Amino acid sequence: MARSKASAPGADWMREHGPGYPLVLSSRARIARNLEGLPFPIAAGEEDLEKARGMVLEAVSRRVAEDRDWEVSFAEELSRNRLEMMAEEHITPAAFSDRIGGRAVAIGPNDGRSVMVNEEDHVRIQAILPGAQFMKAWKAADEIDTVLETEVQYCYDQRLGYLTSSPSNIGTGLRVSAMLHLPALVTTGDIGKTISALAQAGIYVRGLYGEGSGVAGNIFQISNRQTLGRTEEFIVSNMDMIVRQVVDNERTARKMMLREAELDLADRAYRSLGVVERCRRVCYYEALELISLIKLGVDTEVLPVSDFNILEVGVAISPYHLREFLGGEAGEEDVDRERSVHLRKMLDL
Amino acid sequence: MARSKASAPGADWMREHGPGYPLVLSSRARIARNLEGLPFPIAAGEEDLEKARGMVLEAVSRRVAEDRDWEVSFAEELSRNRLEMMAEEHITPAAFSDRIGGRAVAIGPNDGRSVMVNEEDHVRIQAILPGAQFMKAWKAADEIDTVLETEVQYCYDQRLGYLTSSPSNIGTGLRVSAMLHLPALVTTGDIGKTISALAQAGIYVRGLYGEGSGVAGNIFQISNRQTLGRTEEFIVSNMDMIVRQVVDNERTARKMMLREAELDLADRAYRSLGVVERCRRVCYYEALELISLIKLGVDTEVLPVSDFNILEVGVAISPYHLREFLGGEAGEEDVDRERSVHLRKMLDL
Repeated sequence: MARSKASAPGADWMREHGPGYPLVLSSRARIARNLEGLPFPIAAGEEDLEKARGMVLEAVSRRVAEDRDWEVSFAEELSRNRLEMMAEEHITPAAFSDRIGGRAVAIGPNDGRSVMVNEEDHVRIQAILPGAQFMKAWKAADEIDTVLETEVQYCYDQRLGYLTSSPSNIGTGLRVSAMLHLPALVTTGDIGKTISALAQAGIYVRGLYGEGSGVAGNIFQISNRQTLGRTEEFIVSNMDMIVRQVVDNERTARKMMLREAELDLADRAYRSLGVVERCRRVCYYEALELISLIKLGVDTEVLPVSDFNILEVGVAISPYHLREFLGGEAGEEDVDRERSVHLRKMLDL
Repeated sequence: MARSKASAPGADWMREHGPGYPLVLSSRARIARNLEGLPFPIAAGEEDLEKARGMVLEAVSRRVAEDRDWEVSFAEELSRNRLEMMAEEHITPAAFSDRIGGRAVAIGPNDGRSVMVNEEDHVRIQAILPGAQFMKAWKAADEIDTVLETEVQYCYDQRLGYLTSSPSNIGTGLRVSAMLHLPALVTTGDIGKTISALAQAGIYVRGLYGEGSGVAGNIFQISNRQTLGRTEEFIVSNMDMIVRQVVDNERTARKMMLREAELDLADRAYRSLGVVERCRRVCYYEALELISLIKLGVDTEVLPVSDFNILEVGVAISPYHLREFLGGEAGEEDVDRERSVHLRKMLDL
């Protein structure tokens, strides 16, 4: 297991087509665990954090990474840019860099698997796959969880299940989420009904970067609210069923737009293309909106542009990836300007 | 003097560069007169309107048109499209088609001169020239006025001067106006100060289509408010002086934008170009905004696009010109769609 810099921009799951493409961008399973006998990270001192990090990384090294090329990064050894880039690549949550002491991430060989240490919980195991593959994503995370448990003692309560820093993760510690691209539901306004229905079904609806992030580029992240009193299999198959329904709604909305408002659809997609082709600078939010409408145009075949993966493009033009490209110290105007150039390259324009 | 259909889209003054180009688009002088012994048009019956029309057109025919190719149109013989097209070409005011009985227009051979009969006043003589040529425009109108007065008896009061339907035209009956393109003043926000200063100087500020029309495409029409108690020469030279000041303000704003916000200026111009290149439909108002920013980009040399006259393009993509092009019965969606095609042709894109 090598210890090196953060991984290259974008893992394979961003480039591959999975089931439900292009509406279902990815499936993610995340398991939260804590070590028995050590205070939870939020309450732990430096020494305990170091101890937890050592125990978890050693277990990962011995049982998960084996001889495969996992990369381990200690948060305090990474630049601010690199830390933010990991969040932009969906490896860590946006708040990961707020407190870096004792934190670490072990990242699998571009396969969407990672283990985060000392964020909200001692251990956060994550597996991301392209498209709707919730069961497979959960099994990939569960496999890591199972072998780690042979090395370390997890904090477990007979009645409640696995204990976590936040009560919202207690029990299974499992959060399954889907990243969905829903431009037609947003354009027709039917997204409101869909979000209400999801809320009633116990599903969180969030933006591209999870909790606390706004929706941009018509990309929605939906995840199970309940982690307690449900089996992992139920949580996973429930997400699968719900995603099928949302995807059906989006497909219906796209058909309706093509039938009743094709000129409007084409106009929006073409205008977005024109702006991307010509703009001299563009902010991240607007860029996501533009590529969302171009992608809708590609998907519905009103726009003669080569297909692309919206998440892969989104990561390539994200603020810290561009800042890193420009040399680490670039200002916002330089980043916005470079984004317009990058965008044209990524879309082959 | 031929009696035929309305003139071809756009007179020469829209295509030529005059002094102050490209900021001063055109100069217009308009003289209002009424015939002695006949009720003003607003109060006149059909018979009196016919009588006035006959007298004015005969005078025009004998003394103005002579053997040159003037076109005379009776309003009630024109289609709704043709009537509106004359307004779009700035020959008649927007309200001309509201009441057509007894009205007529005699239009000079693409030289910007015209005589309108039985609109608000019996006679409205107009001369438009490219750029800032207020004195020349007034002299062209005055020349027509002088020869007509040898044929007909004008309604004149020794104390007040020429009498008109609206008190706002009484005295000289002269309204001198300038069409100005002021995108930088609008972008920097300094247009507010300019408009206040103009109001204090007794100048009306209106949009592309005069009284009651909104500003579109950053095109402003400014004209003298006072027609009474001032000589024609004063009105004309005052307008010339005021236009020079506004043009200076716009030039300063452009220099400031180039110095302090060139990227922003380029970005706006390029985006507008991208939208024009790619849109599948566009409404008239938005199209004017787009060509205004493209023109600003051309003027400031940040955009490598061939120069064009914003008024000429504006007329070519105006609603009734496009409707006429499509066959007279086209709906709004068809017009908006054709406008996007026309726009690309007009700008050589």
